[in-house]
Amino acid sequence: ILFDRLCAMLSPKDLTGRKVLVTAGPTCEAIDPVRFISNRSSGKMGYALAAAAEYRGAEVVLVSGPTNLAPPVNVETVAVESADQMAQAVFSRMADTDIIVKVAAVGDYRVETPADRKIKKSGQAGLPLALVENIDILKEVGARKKAGQVVVGFAAETHDLAANARAKLAAKKVDLLVANPVAGDETAFGADTNQATLFYKDGTEEQLPRMDKAKLAHAILDRVAKLAVK
Amino acid sequence: ILFDRLCAMLSPKDLTGRKVLVTAGPTCEAIDPVRFISNRSSGKMGYALAAAAEYRGAEVVLVSGPTNLAPPVNVETVAVESADQMAQAVFSRMADTDIIVKVAAVGDYRVETPADRKIKKSGQAGLPLALVENIDILKEVGARKKAGQVVVGFAAETHDLAANARAKLAAKKVDLLVANPVAGDETAFGADTNQATLFYKDGTEEQLPRMDKAKLAHAILDRVAKLAVK
Repeated sequence: ILFDRLCAMLSPKDLTGRKVLVTAGPTCEAIDPVRFISNRSSGKMGYALAAAAEYRGAEVVLVSGPTNLAPPVNVETVAVESADQMAQAVFSRMADTDIIVKVAAVGDYRVETPADRKIKKSGQAGLPLALVENIDILKEVGARKKAGQVVVGFAAETHDLAANARAKLAAKKVDLLVANPVAGDETAFGADTNQATLFYKDGTEEQLPRMDKAKLAHAILDRVAKLAVK
Repeated sequence: ILFDRLCAMLSPKDLTGRKVLVTAGPTCEAIDPVRFISNRSSGKMGYALAAAAEYRGAEVVLVSGPTNLAPPVNVETVAVESADQMAQAVFSRMADTDIIVKVAAVGDYRVETPADRKIKKSGQAGLPLALVENIDILKEVGARKKAGQVVVGFAAETHDLAANARAKLAAKKVDLLVANPVAGDETAFGADTNQATLFYKDGTEEQLPRMDKAKLAHAILDRVAKLAVK
């Protein structure tokens, strides 16, 4: 905590007075009371961004799926499990927010009807699982965005990173899209470092070198702070 | 570590020279490179049993699915992800083992063909997921059991605990089945305490009070050590 506060003191205060909402981690969709579908997001990038925004003077709310990380100091952390819960937590807070950074790896699908008892093996060959699409939180946030609000999205891709990122940027009305690879040894999921490419609304791109997630968080906020004063 | 070694010194040494194999944690079945199916097992009960067996003088191998727990001191820990990997790790070691304690919550199902790229949202209504049954490790261990080997299974149930436990005991040729509830506030998953009922091959049952998982591990090993000398 002492080191944390020292880092906070040494950070630029370019987000003072700004309200920042960060989402982080995976979401977790129940199959039954014991089984679930999730993804390999560790939450580290989102927690690093929430901590960095707090260092820079912002009032930060962190909406987090299940992770094993300690909540950042001086940040209001809201724990959720499912994509629906995350959506409600974000929508209910976004009107009162200047900057929204959606780092969470939100599950695209949920089980249509989770069982209320543990599903027993049937002795049959398998179990067909009917998955339905979850609400697209980033798209909805982009659609509800008010003048002056800055929305930052993340794209985690195993293939065709740039093409997928540009399509996402266009489809979701975000101001900045941070794309990071999640395939093989280069994966951002679970790692302490990350290699991001930034895609801006005006069509420009910026490739950042691989760096520590805490450092990357500040590099991203350097850009966001400039977008937020425009 | 000092406290850990003190606990070890104060434990009975009734498993000295015995080779014990413990499985722990959930398994994790890939849907694609980022998504997976898993369950809410934390691994705490299995890690407690591995540590307790080591305290009591056994040579312990712990085969563990993904958990956030530190490997127990002086225990050979083998990390696996899927049920298939856990099965291979157990089968390759079981011949050279005196006592097998299968605590892991092994996924009953896996995705028939995991995608090698992140599945993109189709824009269609949903995603049908074809799940196939995994190998039943406990049943296979029971079938391969040699004379003198002791096999202990766990049953985690949300409903009909006793009936499901008796059926499992009969079907899987284990010597002792430890049944614990995993529904609602009473759930053993993730908790530091557990309430177990023991079902023996001879038809007898023994209900233990709710207790700390470390204490329960020793209570179970008290019984196992007796079964192992018969």
